[in-house]
Formats: sequence, structure tokens, C-alpha cells
Amino acid sequence: DLFDSGKLVSEGWIFGNSFNTELATGGVETGAPPFEAGASQRDNDYMHVINLDKAAELFKAGRAEKIKDFSVLSLETIIEEGVLYFIPEPKSPHGVDVTPDGAYIVVSGKLDPHVTIYSFDKIMKTIADKNWEPDQFGVPVLDFDSCVEAQIEVGLGPLHTQFDNQGYAYTSLFLEPSVARWALGGEAGKKNSEPDWTLVGKVPVQYNVGHIAVAEGDTVSPDGKYLVSMNKWAIDRFAPVGPLVPQNFQLVDIDNSGDTMKVIYDMPIGMGEPHYAQIIKADKLKPWDVYPEVGWNPETQSVRLDYARQGKERIERDGKNVDIYMTLVRSHFKPEHVEVNEGDHIRWHITNVERAYDATHGFAVPGYNINVSLEPGEAQTIEFVADEPGVYPFYCSEFCSALHLEMMGYFLVKPAE
Amino acid sequence: DLFDSGKLVSEGWIFGNSFNTELATGGVETGAPPFEAGASQRDNDYMHVINLDKAAELFKAGRAEKIKDFSVLSLETIIEEGVLYFIPEPKSPHGVDVTPDGAYIVVSGKLDPHVTIYSFDKIMKTIADKNWEPDQFGVPVLDFDSCVEAQIEVGLGPLHTQFDNQGYAYTSLFLEPSVARWALGGEAGKKNSEPDWTLVGKVPVQYNVGHIAVAEGDTVSPDGKYLVSMNKWAIDRFAPVGPLVPQNFQLVDIDNSGDTMKVIYDMPIGMGEPHYAQIIKADKLKPWDVYPEVGWNPETQSVRLDYARQGKERIERDGKNVDIYMTLVRSHFKPEHVEVNEGDHIRWHITNVERAYDATHGFAVPGYNINVSLEPGEAQTIEFVADEPGVYPFYCSEFCSALHLEMMGYFLVKPAE
Repeated sequence: DLFDSGKLVSEGWIFGNSFNTELATGGVETGAPPFEAGASQRDNDYMHVINLDKAAELFKAGRAEKIKDFSVLSLETIIEEGVLYFIPEPKSPHGVDVTPDGAYIVVSGKLDPHVTIYSFDKIMKTIADKNWEPDQFGVPVLDFDSCVEAQIEVGLGPLHTQFDNQGYAYTSLFLEPSVARWALGGEAGKKNSEPDWTLVGKVPVQYNVGHIAVAEGDTVSPDGKYLVSMNKWAIDRFAPVGPLVPQNFQLVDIDNSGDTMKVIYDMPIGMGEPHYAQIIKADKLKPWDVYPEVGWNPETQSVRLDYARQGKERIERDGKNVDIYMTLVRSHFKPEHVEVNEGDHIRWHITNVERAYDATHGFAVPGYNINVSLEPGEAQTIEFVADEPGVYPFYCSEFCSALHLEMMGYFLVKPAE
Repeated sequence: DLFDSGKLVSEGWIFGNSFNTELATGGVETGAPPFEAGASQRDNDYMHVINLDKAAELFKAGRAEKIKDFSVLSLETIIEEGVLYFIPEPKSPHGVDVTPDGAYIVVSGKLDPHVTIYSFDKIMKTIADKNWEPDQFGVPVLDFDSCVEAQIEVGLGPLHTQFDNQGYAYTSLFLEPSVARWALGGEAGKKNSEPDWTLVGKVPVQYNVGHIAVAEGDTVSPDGKYLVSMNKWAIDRFAPVGPLVPQNFQLVDIDNSGDTMKVIYDMPIGMGEPHYAQIIKADKLKPWDVYPEVGWNPETQSVRLDYARQGKERIERDGKNVDIYMTLVRSHFKPEHVEVNEGDHIRWHITNVERAYDATHGFAVPGYNINVSLEPGEAQTIEFVADEPGVYPFYCSEFCSALHLEMMGYFLVKPAE
């Protein structure tokens, strides 16, 4: 992504892109170049190379100062102690991604048609040789040529890179729009027959792709086989339904070597914009079927101190404060009649006492704009003031059984005198 | 659904199910039967048969009275004028659906394994013959046997029925869970080779199905070919990720006749519960690509009186009231710098002046919890008090071009003295 951690040989370091080395702040309304032009004037921005282990040492040694309660290592300290280095990178860089073996760092400059590959060994040697010039703030800017391993022309608008198990890398091309496959060098390069650091093929995607995800494609052991292209625009891909167009995830088959990638499936995403995603093996998940104990609070991941227990359902009153303890089970609420006075301060404690998988219940009091969904074992407390007199039906809002429609009761708010 | 309109011969009438003829209100906490048991004691509830055209006539003739500003025809009036009739239906009925030719009304009683088919002709004759008994409120309850055309044993938990172009009906079975196909009678029954009013086949669905949708399956000219089963539970259908399980839409191929239905696709629904849906032909939609004019307010479907116009971007101040007129276009805001004073009342007028399809922009000021999405041509006004001094970046939150990341500006709130 925009920052990535080192792996294996580069463990303990992190690598981040930056843009706007120009320090532009915009101001088009006063005749200044608009922000996006002001921030794109120079040919280079800087990759940030950060020695995180060293920074942690300095923090432990008390070298951080407090700024508004945050511990901060000053620029002077991190320059002096060799925590931060810059390396020039092509203009308006976007993604930075570390190869599975940790030996290379891949940078995509979105206004440059190349991916630029830096060698971690070469970076370390350049630092050891002090082959740098300070920038205007004194940060060492390492010599570009001494750090670069290769540059590959992949196409227009390269953004992010992922990896597979065949020694290939994949880079999203926002402007073409396509996904490019290219051959890695080093040890990983021996896994395929293509020459190191060469473009192997491309597959058009529909349309402008941002991030991509290969199965475990950002780990030390990528799984390969499939890639998902997270496309920002869909335009003519689905039946048009108005000015808002869905984003589009496309599944790409990358199982064969060479120039053979194929889009095999489209999935529109109705809400939100697809950003970063990771594909992991399903057997790494060990999810609960139901919450471990009845009375569970999913926010704190613990049992609530004061939850509604089965057999102890009740309504307690202390002056104008009313505590309602209610349980939900297929297919009724207990209690079913709740009577309070106008102006009472209500705390409604509700527990779904089910222990069966997928036995979710809802609790809706539409007249008071309340609708809660409770998974098996979950307990919630709802607080409100009963400020409108009337008879308010409440009911289950998750279809729970053939008698779901009959899972209901009445909340009666008596008018004040 | 729970109510359906007449079609063709039955145009002008509506048919609705009811439950809880027992008038149970629950009260399990005081030893009464729980609501779902109290509401399920009798063998029959009542289908409501309503002469809507007649009701409209009575309204026009001034026969309605006002109750809290609503025009209401009293029960006495609608009984006297023949607007409302009841017909017994098997206990706890759920769906009522009118056949494409309008000649039959199909009722599913979810605690009864049959669908019950009423003939509109027979209902009209029973009314003409005054073959009824009044219920406790004086509503005429038509004789069941005189109105019923057929009953078909379809299976456990029948809920809703849709129709196709081959003379078949489809009923969702919540408890089995399956979708049943059965042959219609009358004119429609001649389209297939099965005997009228008989069960033809079933297809299991995964799992408990509520509504179903056949292509144009609730119209006078169903399209057939596909059915979507909207299943409430998914249980083992997808990789488990915790106590909340997605709902599951399944696509069923119904193109061949006989007992040949086949589930061909699963689609998990992550949010909300699938309820009613309709499948219509795509060419019936004539959507806009972009809003018809710049400055469009999608809520009122008209151009705003006071929107930010391209070339007229500005900041106006009147005492503590500040009006900001800002435009959005790939890839910048204008103005990019907005300076106000702590405590100012801000009205921020923003217009996406794009005329290109799918060129949506966002406007986010996270420090003030603002995030708006604007489709091409859309204008919005955001109002808030600038009550926290500071420098707040704002930026585009919909990926709009290769320079999307650079589409940003600054909102400066000067501290009060």
C-alpha cells in the first residue's frame, strides 16, 4: 500500500511513499496553481526508508519528547541516529510494496509508466557508504542509481503491486485500465521461465482499477491462483440505474504462467469504494458460531455485568428511572407488555438467549426509532426518555421462525396528568 | 405479498391476509399464553376482500370522516355499502397473491401445508347470493366452500407465491425449506401438460426462504425463465466469519417444464434482511446518466435556487454567517483555501459540475465529521458551526482520476480572541 513493512531480510524496516515534495498548498482561487498541479511540478518525490527497530530503541532509551500526549522522536534525533532516509522516486508515487522474500521494494509512480524496483541490500550498502546528500531539512537523500535494481515499463497509471507463487508480480494500471504481470528477479525469478524484471503480459479490467489482491499476495508465501481487481468505475458493465454507478470487483484467473490472465467474474459493489483488501486462506479463521456466553457484549468482548437473564425477566422502577430486563427466544419476548409513564427514563436491557447458530433476533420499537439486531448470546442496553405517550408495538426484525410475525409485544406510555 | 391487488377481471378489488382473529395481545409475564400461541388458537383467520373502487366512490361522495387529519370510512359504512368481506382462510396465513389472469387468489397459511385457491367469480357469486354470516363486528364472513376453487398440499410452511409464463405457480416453503412448483387451473392451466391444481415438483433451497421473485412474476404477463429465492438463513453455505450469518439469494433455473428446477447460483447478502423484491425487464428503465442540470437537488428533483456555479465560486460573510460557494471538477476544489473564525455559522454550498457519466466526487472534512458524495451535476448545502479552531484538510473521497489523491484543500478556523 502507501506504506509497507519489510519482510525476512528487511524485517524491522518500513518503506513509505510521499508526494508533494513541493510543499504546495493550493490556492487556485487566488491565481496560484491548483493543488494537484502545484504538487506535481518536480520529477521526483521521496520514498521514506525508516529503521523502525532503531526508532523503538530510541523510544525505550527515553529519547522521545511529548507533544500533546504523543511520544515523538524529533527530526533532528532520527536524522542523527539513522532512523530516516529518503530515496528519490518517480513523480507522484502511489503504491510501495515489498516482495515476498523481503529483498526488493516496488514503487509505482502514477504519472510515470514504470515500476521502480529498489534493492534492500543496495539501500543498506548506500547507507553504509554514506552515499547521500541532505535535503533542505537535513534528511539524507540516498543516491538513486546506487539503490535501484531495475525499472520496468508496465503501462499508464501504475498504482499497487501484489505477488504470486510463480515468481510474478502484478501491478494495477489505473489509466489503461489493466493489470500487468511481470517477472521478479533474484531467487523468486527462478520460479518462472521469463527473464528477470520483464513485463510478461496484461489483462484489461473494467474499469479504472485501484487496489488488487492476490491470494495471500502481500505475505512471505503468496498462494497465487486468483487475483481480484478492485475497480473504481463500472460504466457500461451493469444495467444502468441512474447517475450513481457501482464499483466493480473482478476475479482474474492467474493460475497459468505467461500472458494468460483472464477475467472470469464481475461483482458489483453497491456501497462504498473498494480500497485495500486481503485474501487469506479460510482455515486461518476460527470463528465463533455463537457468542461464548449468554449476556455477551460484542464491543467489550465480555459478559455484561447487568444483563437480562432467562427466568429473571422483570421491570424495576426507582422514581422516574425504569429498568426493563427482557429476553428474546424463538418466538417471543418476555415481558410482552411494558407499561411506563410519560417522561420516564428507560433503560431497556435485552438479551438474545438463543444458543443455536444463525438464530439472530431483532428488537424494533419504530415509534421510538429503535431497531437493534442481536446475535445468539448478545445483550444490549438501550437508554431513552419515554417522552411521547401512546401504545407502541415492538417486534422482532430478523426472520427467526415460522412464528416470527407473531414475535411482538406492546410498550405502553401513559400520559402525564 | 400480505396484500395484493386484483388484476384484469378482479381489477378494482384488493385482497389481504390477517392473523390474530383471536385478538390476543400476549402477556406471558403474567401467565397468559405468549403472543404467538395466543394468536394461533383458532383454525381460521380471515382474508379481507375489499372493493377499492367502491371505497373511492364513497370517499368522493363525502362519506369519509376525519380522524387526526386522515380520511376514514367507518366500519359501519363499509359493511353497509359492501366494501369489506371476510373469507375464512387456514390459520396464520402469510402471503396472498393474485394469478396473472386475475381469476384466482392464492393464500398460504404458514401453519397449514396447503395453498388455498379462491375463485374471484365464486367470491362475486357468494356476495351476490348473500351467502354469509356476520362476525362479531358485523363484517360479512363469506361461506368458505362457496369461494374455494382448490387446495393443494405443497409442503411445510408455505409463505408466498409467484407465477411464470408456462402456467405454473411457485410457492416458497419456509420450513422444508424448498420452492414448490404447481400447475394452475383455468385458462392458464392449458399452457402445461400437468393436471390443473396439482403439485409438479420441488427444489430444496439453502435455507429458510421467505419471499421469492420470478421475472415479472407478479404481473399480468410473467416472463418466467428464472426465480430468485430470498433465503433468510445461510448457515453452512459460506465460509463462517462469526455469529452473524449472511442471508442468501439463490438463482433458480425454471425454464424447463415438469420437476426440473435447479439452483444455479448463490449470492450472500451482507446487510439487511431480504424481503420483497421484483424482477423487471431492464429495458423498462430509462435512467439518467447524469442529473439533467448542474445544481441538481436529488431530494427535490429540481435545481437548487442557491447553488455554487462554476466561475462564481466565492466566500461571502454577513456577521458570523459565512456562505462558501465551491465547485468540484477533476481534480480540484475551488476555492482550495477557506478561512473562517471560531464560532462562525457555516453554510457550505458544493456543486459537482461534471457532465461525464460516473464522475462522482466526494467532499470530506473528517475533522468536522463531514463526508458527502456528489454525483455529476449534484449540489448540496452543508450547515454547521465552526466551533473547533484548527487547520482541517478537506479532500475528495471518491476515486476520480489519477490525481484524486491531490484533490484537496484546507479549511482554516482561526481561534477566537
